[in-house]
Amino acid sequence: MSAVAGAERRARAALSFLAEPGEPALGALLKSCRPGEILDAVLSGKEPREALPAARGGVSGLARAFRRWRARAGRIPSPARLESWERRGMRLVCPGDPEWPTQLDVLGDASPLLLWLQGCADLRFACLRSVSVVGARAATGYGRHVATEMAAALAERGWAVISGGAYGIDSCAHRGALGADGVTVAVLASGLSYAYPKGHHELFAAIAGQGVMVSEWPPDRAPTRPGFLVRNRVIAALSCGTVVVEAALRSGALSTARHARDLCRPLMAVPGPVTSDLSAGCHEIIREWGAVCVTGARDVIEMVSPSGDGLGPGRRGPACPRDSLDPVTRAVLEAVPARAGSGPAAVAITAGVDLNTAIGCLGALAAAGFVERCVRGWRLRKDA
Amino acid sequence: MSAVAGAERRARAALSFLAEPGEPALGALLKSCRPGEILDAVLSGKEPREALPAARGGVSGLARAFRRWRARAGRIPSPARLESWERRGMRLVCPGDPEWPTQLDVLGDASPLLLWLQGCADLRFACLRSVSVVGARAATGYGRHVATEMAAALAERGWAVISGGAYGIDSCAHRGALGADGVTVAVLASGLSYAYPKGHHELFAAIAGQGVMVSEWPPDRAPTRPGFLVRNRVIAALSCGTVVVEAALRSGALSTARHARDLCRPLMAVPGPVTSDLSAGCHEIIREWGAVCVTGARDVIEMVSPSGDGLGPGRRGPACPRDSLDPVTRAVLEAVPARAGSGPAAVAITAGVDLNTAIGCLGALAAAGFVERCVRGWRLRKDA
Repeated sequence: MSAVAGAERRARAALSFLAEPGEPALGALLKSCRPGEILDAVLSGKEPREALPAARGGVSGLARAFRRWRARAGRIPSPARLESWERRGMRLVCPGDPEWPTQLDVLGDASPLLLWLQGCADLRFACLRSVSVVGARAATGYGRHVATEMAAALAERGWAVISGGAYGIDSCAHRGALGADGVTVAVLASGLSYAYPKGHHELFAAIAGQGVMVSEWPPDRAPTRPGFLVRNRVIAALSCGTVVVEAALRSGALSTARHARDLCRPLMAVPGPVTSDLSAGCHEIIREWGAVCVTGARDVIEMVSPSGDGLGPGRRGPACPRDSLDPVTRAVLEAVPARAGSGPAAVAITAGVDLNTAIGCLGALAAAGFVERCVRGWRLRKDA
Repeated sequence: MSAVAGAERRARAALSFLAEPGEPALGALLKSCRPGEILDAVLSGKEPREALPAARGGVSGLARAFRRWRARAGRIPSPARLESWERRGMRLVCPGDPEWPTQLDVLGDASPLLLWLQGCADLRFACLRSVSVVGARAATGYGRHVATEMAAALAERGWAVISGGAYGIDSCAHRGALGADGVTVAVLASGLSYAYPKGHHELFAAIAGQGVMVSEWPPDRAPTRPGFLVRNRVIAALSCGTVVVEAALRSGALSTARHARDLCRPLMAVPGPVTSDLSAGCHEIIREWGAVCVTGARDVIEMVSPSGDGLGPGRRGPACPRDSLDPVTRAVLEAVPARAGSGPAAVAITAGVDLNTAIGCLGALAAAGFVERCVRGWRLRKDA
């Protein structure tokens, strides 16, 4: 299902071992140069202006960035090493691939170079209907309870739950979604093979089994302190909205909230006792940033899908007969499996249409009650 | 200190035994007729259009209102009865009296006909710098704690605390202010002599000793269910802003909140656990009505006095010498007592200026650090 040519894929993979995620110099270069050109220029040993004439003048700090990247040239893994990670179930996804979540494009120069994924869910598909639920590591019993219940209720209504895989609120959000047989997405600040924190080994395995693990870092990379803040922009950009469940006044969870606000995505916070320091950050962003005060999944869904999608009782069966569909839509419907589910790209190939046509038809078919979303993509509705 | 002539005062007192507080027909009549004219017309037994030509056509439902009021003519008390209440410490205040809180004028036709007061504080003066703190009768330990602390902190910073004298949040608000030696105002839905609820007999005595008790009803009147809702408009209109500490979704406290919102006064709510039904009303008005999420007295003061009045450390001593004051301001300053405190009306009489001049000069003198507020009005600052 890879849509991106092998050479570009290999160049992006190599660059991901040289540059840090979110480095604006690399993001700016990628607007005018192909990844392979940039990699060759870095490894050539020449000055940027000489090695990469296309980037001349447009990117500040490029000479320093080149020196930094070149110093790491020895980290570039062999093709065999990349293949060994892929054999262990990790897949490398680049912009342009069917599974690439295009909503990350709003990050501009800070958009990820690539993503490493592990798990059975389709990332792009899961995130089309997702909410980030984040908060303090040192959560209270109250915060843990609310995060778990909210994530479970979101999952029950077909919303994927995105979080950061940390102790506290994050883990409760993931576990709540898993407990409701929903899809959950953990965006780590370490490589997927390093998988920090170690104490979440089993949780991460469960997430991979039912959702998807995500990282911008090479699989064996340990986390760094600034990496957590860099990672938070991806949590905010992937989802349709961000909920802060508990956060102290200077909590890292507020960095995710700040990204959501800056990206103009719905920002929500759960209130709590004013006597609890761990709710002070939530009250602060309600008061000062205009975060919406939400008390449960119903409030959240109202914010991320103003039409109330997922709020009402499920409609029974399609509103119009199969015969009334136009030929293209009917072809897409024929390509949707009855049980296991297929991603939009697979449906497109089977139906013989392009990806955007498939996505459009699937949306229309869902609205008409013929198909429904599941972990792996789309499947026929049992009652259709 | 009465500024309203005895005839009008007696007529208003009589009418208060005939009409219910907030009756729009009476409020509308008072725009074009004097209270004595209305009383005479009611008691004449004639049709309104005949008895009160000035009101012709302007007031709907007047014939029915006249019949209702006339049926109660036997309730009008003798002058001796009124005097006996006044001897027991209750004072009748009418629009135009120095102690009348003119901020009630925003209520228009629903503005009170008169107020019965009992207690040592000057109502008009206290309410110039006041916050209403209201909430559920069936409050939780959390709500009681927050209401008490907030009222105490408001009182410590010189803000009067207004509430409804009920069990639960109201009583905690009054007690918090009393405990901090502050002024508190209880606006009852019964007469002051009936003083409902009976279990608050001692609390009401303490409020009268340090603040003021308020009622629109004749002193011996028992409360009625609709009376509580009618009373709430006065709580909202008297203060510079209203805080709801705890309220269930269909709590009576939300009626006070609705009045504050409709009067465009700052409306605030204290968040709490989303798992508590008694915080659901607070979250609802934060989310749906735009009430500001406040976590303590500091947030409240920021809302009701955007300049941050009362937030900073007290300034020490006046910024300019006494000799630099203009003659009128100096005359007002001379009229301010050193200890006990005087209301603006008394200061105006002593200084030989009109009330508005006195109020303006007192504000300037306070800003310059010469005088300060106290329970009974204004006094000289010790450090001035």
